[in-house]
Amino acid sequence: MEKEDGLGLIQIYTGDGKGKTTAALGLAMRAAGHDFKIAIIQFMKIWNYGEIKSLRRLGIDLFRYGTREFVDPKNPSPIDFDQARRALSKAEELMRKGDYDVLILDEINVAVDFNLIALKRVVDLLDKKPHNLELVLTGRNCPQELIERADLVSIIDEIKHPYKKGVEARKGIEF
Amino acid sequence: MEKEDGLGLIQIYTGDGKGKTTAALGLAMRAAGHDFKIAIIQFMKIWNYGEIKSLRRLGIDLFRYGTREFVDPKNPSPIDFDQARRALSKAEELMRKGDYDVLILDEINVAVDFNLIALKRVVDLLDKKPHNLELVLTGRNCPQELIERADLVSIIDEIKHPYKKGVEARKGIEF
Repeated sequence: MEKEDGLGLIQIYTGDGKGKTTAALGLAMRAAGHDFKIAIIQFMKIWNYGEIKSLRRLGIDLFRYGTREFVDPKNPSPIDFDQARRALSKAEELMRKGDYDVLILDEINVAVDFNLIALKRVVDLLDKKPHNLELVLTGRNCPQELIERADLVSIIDEIKHPYKKGVEARKGIEF
Repeated sequence: MEKEDGLGLIQIYTGDGKGKTTAALGLAMRAAGHDFKIAIIQFMKIWNYGEIKSLRRLGIDLFRYGTREFVDPKNPSPIDFDQARRALSKAEELMRKGDYDVLILDEINVAVDFNLIALKRVVDLLDKKPHNLELVLTGRNCPQELIERADLVSIIDEIKHPYKKGVEARKGIEF
């Protein structure tokens, strides 16, 4: 074990550009190399991500909520609400148990922005973060109340995007 | 093999925020899950990164150049020049051989910005990119000539940074 005790921060990856979840995956991969115990909770979507196989190889635990469909922000389905709430409960549970060194809440910012989960519960989660836990939140449109509680906020913007040129999402690179 | 033939893009991660190399690592991890063949060339630094162990587990090849010291942009050492040039030669060689699906040139933008390698040679590299290769460049201060040739440029900025609050880099998270 190269692991050492230390301060865990609250990190947020937000912005309209690509790379938020990807950066969180890279962070998980780096931490895995130090034998940290890492969990990722997906709040908004379930795809057949290529990373699932890699996460398994690295011993990173993945908890998947959401559906295969994009959530309609104007009209989320009861399933969307249910899935996002279960994801949040799982986050609360894992934090309470304290088994993990790094906890990544993927797309939680969007779940809050879409009102699938209450901002107050997420604020409470951040306020109760154990000293040693590294907590990572991803997703665009991160609410100000969360940003204020973060130690590090990375905003990813894009200059160009291949989708705008008509290139479709490619297996192994974007998903 | 889930791999499929397709267009490979030129992606750039730049900006002053944290997460550029991390995003590239996440991209590599995702691609590894699809059994893509991936190489990462480090241009500027050699640390005992936690990710080295994870890269090995995922079958991602890593070519390390640079030194353990930070390069002084006003006075790079002969070793800095030599290492950066060897890294670029390796990139040219790997691209020519065509064995890889994804090639990540980590901190190459900085190597150009510090004039350790000639911008023109990197421009040539981009212009000669094989159709199927995904080419990823990271590092702050990316020259405009490279941005113009990219399909996707992600700019990572930061709002807050824990270093500014006096927190030191922590093993397993930042390196």
